[in-house]
Amino acid sequence: MRTMAVIGTGLIGTSVALAVSRRGVTVFLSDRDPAAARTAAALGAGLASAPAAPVDLAVIAVPPSQVGAVLAEAQERGLADSYTDVASVKAEPERAALSRAPDPHRYVGGHPLAGRERSGPLAARADLFRGRNWVLTPSRLSSDVAFDRALELIALCEAVPVVMHSQDHDAAVAVTSHVPHLMASLMAARLREGPADLPSVAGQGLRDATRIAGGDSRLWGDILQANAPAIAGVLKELHTDLSRLVPALDALARPGGSERDLGMRTLVDLLDRGISGLAEIPDARPGSSSEDPCVRVAVADRPGELARLLAAVAELGVAADDACVEGADGTSFAVRFSVPPRIADRLVAALDAGGWDVVREQGGERDGERDGEQGLGGATLAGTVRSGRRPQ
Amino acid sequence: MRTMAVIGTGLIGTSVALAVSRRGVTVFLSDRDPAAARTAAALGAGLASAPAAPVDLAVIAVPPSQVGAVLAEAQERGLADSYTDVASVKAEPERAALSRAPDPHRYVGGHPLAGRERSGPLAARADLFRGRNWVLTPSRLSSDVAFDRALELIALCEAVPVVMHSQDHDAAVAVTSHVPHLMASLMAARLREGPADLPSVAGQGLRDATRIAGGDSRLWGDILQANAPAIAGVLKELHTDLSRLVPALDALARPGGSERDLGMRTLVDLLDRGISGLAEIPDARPGSSSEDPCVRVAVADRPGELARLLAAVAELGVAADDACVEGADGTSFAVRFSVPPRIADRLVAALDAGGWDVVREQGGERDGERDGEQGLGGATLAGTVRSGRRPQ
Repeated sequence: MRTMAVIGTGLIGTSVALAVSRRGVTVFLSDRDPAAARTAAALGAGLASAPAAPVDLAVIAVPPSQVGAVLAEAQERGLADSYTDVASVKAEPERAALSRAPDPHRYVGGHPLAGRERSGPLAARADLFRGRNWVLTPSRLSSDVAFDRALELIALCEAVPVVMHSQDHDAAVAVTSHVPHLMASLMAARLREGPADLPSVAGQGLRDATRIAGGDSRLWGDILQANAPAIAGVLKELHTDLSRLVPALDALARPGGSERDLGMRTLVDLLDRGISGLAEIPDARPGSSSEDPCVRVAVADRPGELARLLAAVAELGVAADDACVEGADGTSFAVRFSVPPRIADRLVAALDAGGWDVVREQGGERDGERDGEQGLGGATLAGTVRSGRRPQ
Repeated sequence: MRTMAVIGTGLIGTSVALAVSRRGVTVFLSDRDPAAARTAAALGAGLASAPAAPVDLAVIAVPPSQVGAVLAEAQERGLADSYTDVASVKAEPERAALSRAPDPHRYVGGHPLAGRERSGPLAARADLFRGRNWVLTPSRLSSDVAFDRALELIALCEAVPVVMHSQDHDAAVAVTSHVPHLMASLMAARLREGPADLPSVAGQGLRDATRIAGGDSRLWGDILQANAPAIAGVLKELHTDLSRLVPALDALARPGGSERDLGMRTLVDLLDRGISGLAEIPDARPGSSSEDPCVRVAVADRPGELARLLAAVAELGVAADDACVEGADGTSFAVRFSVPPRIADRLVAALDAGGWDVVREQGGERDGERDGEQGLGGATLAGTVRSGRRPQ
C-alpha cells in the first residue's frame, strides 16, 4: 500500500493518517471543515489536497449516519481502489453500502476499538490503535482485495484484526459501549439534581464510572441512533432488572421487615453476578493470570517482616496486589505471589539469594505476551485474525 | 495523640494504622480474625495486642451494620478516650451510637473517601488517604474532644476534613457511590448473557464503567442495606429516567418513523445533561482550570509545523490535551494552551527563545495547588474544614 485517502480528520481519522504516514504511505486528507484537514496536515498526518490518481485505500472517518453517503460520493468520483470506514456501528453503513454505493464489493466495514474523551485532530495519536482490536465486518459482496487492504491498514496501525458479522458486532457493542455510555449519562445527569454536599463525596470510583459520558453529544447521538434497535433491547432488560432491584432495596429500607432476608439475598446475588460478569472483560493489566505459577514465601510473624518482604519483591516489579497471605499459624505466614513464569524465576532466585524461605509451587505456559508484540509484518498479518476465518 | 486502637484490620483499618504509625503513634491492632491483625502487624502497622491503658482514639473499621455493636462493646471495656469509625454510611452508625453506646458523646462518625478494589490488609497503603476528603459527621452529642481527635487523625493521614450531617452524607453517597456501584453491577451482570463476540469489543471504557462492581459482595451488601432508603429513592428516579429513554430508542429504531426527531432530541438532551453533570465531579487531573491564563502561538500552515510545536511544548510537560486550534486563516494557525500560571511563564519564555510567535493572553490567580500540599501541621488542621463550621 503506497497511497491512502482519509475522509474526516477528527480524532480517529487523523490518528490513522499519522500512523500510516510514519510507515511511508502517502496520505491525502480531507474534511468537511478545510481547517480541520489543514490542522491534521500541519501535525504531519499527510497532505491536505486531493490525489491525482485513485489511491490504494480510502478510510472514511465520519459519523455512522454519514458513511453511506460519503462512500457513494467517493466511489462516484473514483477516489480509491478499496474503501473502509471506522464507524463504531456497522450494520447501517453496510446496508447503505449495499443499497447506494456504486461498487459495494470494494468496501469492507471496520471499527477500531480505540478512542479518547477528547475529539478533533489535536487529540490524535499515531499509537492510538497499537495492540487494540480492530473489527472488520465484510459484507456478502466485499472482495478479497478490499479485505486484504483493510488488513494491511490494521497491521500498519499495529492493531489486532477481528472478523465479525456486522449484526453480531452491533449487538456486542450495544452491551459493551452504547448502553454503558447511556447509563453513565443518566448517572451524571442525576448529579446536577443531587444534594449540595455531593462534590465533597465524589471520588475516583464515580469519576471512572461516568467518564465515558463526556463524549461529544452530537457524535454520540448519531452513533446511538444508528444502533437503536440493539440498544433498545438491552435497555429494556436493564429496566426489568431495575424493576426487581427497587423492591429489594425497599424491603431493606423497612427496619425489622419480614422481607429483609429476601431483599439481602437479591442484592448480594446481583453483586455476585456483577463480579462474575467482569470476567468477560479481557484484563488490560499485563502480568498475572490464573494459569501463572505461584511463588510461596514463609515470613516470620514479627512486626515489619512482611513489609520487608514486600519491599524486596517491589524491587523486582512485583506488587502486593499479586500477593495473598495464607496459613498464618501464629509463628509464621505463607505469602503466595501469582506472577508470570519469567518473573517467577527471577523472584525465586532473588528471594533465595536474600535468605528467604521460598518455593515455586506450580508451572504454567503462557501465550506470547502482548507487551512483546511490537513487531509488524507477515506474522501479524497472517496469524492474528482471531476468529480464524471470514464469516462467509 | 500518642496511642490509638484500630478495630478491624482490613484495607481501610490497616491503611489508617500504617499512616499514623509512621507519625510515631503507637497503634494497637485487633480483628475478629486474629491472623488479619497479625498480618497488619507484620506489615508494620502496629502491635497485634491490647493496650494496657485507654488509648487516645479508637478507630472502628468494620462494616456499617457492625459499628454500633463494636462501639458499645469497646466503650463498655473502656478501650479509648474518643472513638470514630470509617464506615461509608453514617446515619445508621450514629443512630446505633445514640441508642446503644454507653458514652455517645465520645464518638464522632467518619468516612474517608478512599478505597481500592482489593480488600484485606495486604492491599493497605500508608498514603491511601493523602489529599482525599474525609467526612466527619458529629452527632448532637459528640464532644469537642472527640471531634478534635478525629481531626488530628485526618491530619496524620494527610487527608482533608469535611463536616456534614450524617443524613446529608448518606443522601450524597447514594448518588455518588452506591447507585453507581449497583448500576455497574447490573451492566457487568449483563455481560454474562451477551453475545459470544462480546470480549472482542470490550475496551477501556467498559472496564472503567464497571470497575467498581468488583468490590467484595458481602461488604457491599452490608453497605448498601445500611443506606437502603436513600438508594431506593435514587434508583426509582433512574427507573423513571429509563422509562422515558426506552421509547426514544424505540422511535429511533423505526426507519422513517414520524417520532424520530423527538427521539433524537430526547437522546441528545440526555447526553448534554450528562456532560453538564460531570462538572459536579471535582477534577482529579492537576493542571488546567478555566481560570488559567492562555498562551497563544502562531504556527505556519505547513506540514509538520504543528507537530514541531507540540514536540517543543511536550518537553515542558505540556500535552496536546491542553491545546486548541483557532483561527486557521489558510496561511497560519493560532494555537492556544490553557495552563497554570507557573507553566505559562516557562512556556512563553521557552517558545520565545525557540523563535515562535508567542503571546500570553490572560492572567489568573490560583489557590495553592494540591501537588504542593505535602506538609502537615497547624495550617492543615485549622484551615481546611471546608464547610466552615460544624453543623450544630
